[in-house]
Amino acid sequence: MSLVTDTIRNGVDTQQLYATLDLIKQQPELAEFQFRATNRWIDGAHNRSTIRGFHAAGGEDESRTEEFQLDAGEPAILLGTDTGANPAEHLLHALAACLTTSIVYVAAARKVELTSVESTLTGDMDVRGALGVDKEPRNGFERITVSFHVTGNAPAEKLHEVVERAKARSAVYDMVTNGVPVAVEVTAN
Amino acid sequence: MSLVTDTIRNGVDTQQLYATLDLIKQQPELAEFQFRATNRWIDGAHNRSTIRGFHAAGGEDESRTEEFQLDAGEPAILLGTDTGANPAEHLLHALAACLTTSIVYVAAARKVELTSVESTLTGDMDVRGALGVDKEPRNGFERITVSFHVTGNAPAEKLHEVVERAKARSAVYDMVTNGVPVAVEVTAN
Repeated sequence: MSLVTDTIRNGVDTQQLYATLDLIKQQPELAEFQFRATNRWIDGAHNRSTIRGFHAAGGEDESRTEEFQLDAGEPAILLGTDTGANPAEHLLHALAACLTTSIVYVAAARKVELTSVESTLTGDMDVRGALGVDKEPRNGFERITVSFHVTGNAPAEKLHEVVERAKARSAVYDMVTNGVPVAVEVTAN
Repeated sequence: MSLVTDTIRNGVDTQQLYATLDLIKQQPELAEFQFRATNRWIDGAHNRSTIRGFHAAGGEDESRTEEFQLDAGEPAILLGTDTGANPAEHLLHALAACLTTSIVYVAAARKVELTSVESTLTGDMDVRGALGVDKEPRNGFERITVSFHVTGNAPAEKLHEVVERAKARSAVYDMVTNGVPVAVEVTAN
C-alpha cells in the first residue's frame, strides 16, 4: 500500500486527524471554537442564512474562500411557497449530517473502510403547538427517528460500535437530545 | 386599501392563516405532521440530504414539485474541504430560520407590517468534546446567542412582544432549548 492509501481513509486524512488530536491535547485553549450564521428575512416564510467566518484554534479562520447561503421556506399548507426546506427539516439535515460525519471520522480512526452510509430521518410534530392553537402539544418534534444503513469492510458488530461511538461524540446529536441554552437579544426600530 | 393589501401581510396570506387555524381547531387530527430527510455520505465530511415528502393534514403532501438538496461539510481545520456549511452551522440556520418565520407570522396575525428582520447567531463550542479528547466539555455548543434587529410599523415595545411570542411558538427554538427524544436504528452490511 502506498503512503496515501495508509493516510487517507474514508476521505479523511488520518495523519492530520491524529496530529489535530495531539495538538489539542497539548494546547486545550486551541479547542475553543465559535461558529456563526447571519440571517435575513426576504418575504413571507422565505429567509436566507449566510455562513462563512468562524473562530478556531486561537484566531479567526481565513481558509474559507466563499460563503454558504441557505434558504428556508414553508410548503403551501404552512403558508409558504417552498423557497427552501422548512426550519424543522433543516434541523433533521443538521442531525443527519453530524451523525454521518461522526460515523465517517470514527471509522477512519478505527481503520474501518466504509462503503456507504445512508440514513432516513423522520420527525413527528403536532402543529397545534407551533401554530398556537393548543397549549398541550409542544412546538417541536415529539420524537425523531434516525434509521442508518452502514456498509464497510468490518463485521456488522464493529459497524454498530462505530455508530454507537459516533452518537456519543456528535455535536448536533448532543444538542438535539439534550438542548442548549439560547439567549435571544432584540433591538427594534 | 384593496382586498389584496388587507389579506397579504409580510408576504403571509392572513386569510389563509386564520382559515388554517380554524380548521385545525375543529379537526385536531389534521395537525399531525411528519417531516423527513434522507442523507447519503459522499466522501470524508461531505454528505447530502434530500428533502421532499411529508405527511400533513391527514395525507401525504403532493404539492412540492421538486426536492431540496442540502450539502454538509467541514472546513480544513476540521478535516474537510468546505463542501457545505458544517452540521452545527446548519443547526444555527435552522434556529434562525424558525425564529424569523415565527416573527413574520406572528406579526402578520397581529397586523404589524415588518420592514426588516435580521439576525446574527453565534455558538460556542469546545471541540475537545466532539473530538473525544476530553470528557469534560459537552459535544455541542455550550451556549447560543441570537441577536435580532427588527423594524416595522409598530412601536419598539410591540415589536419586542412579537419576538417574545415567536420564541414561545417556534418549533426549532423549542427543540434546541429543550431537546427531543431521538431514536437511532442501525442496520449494517
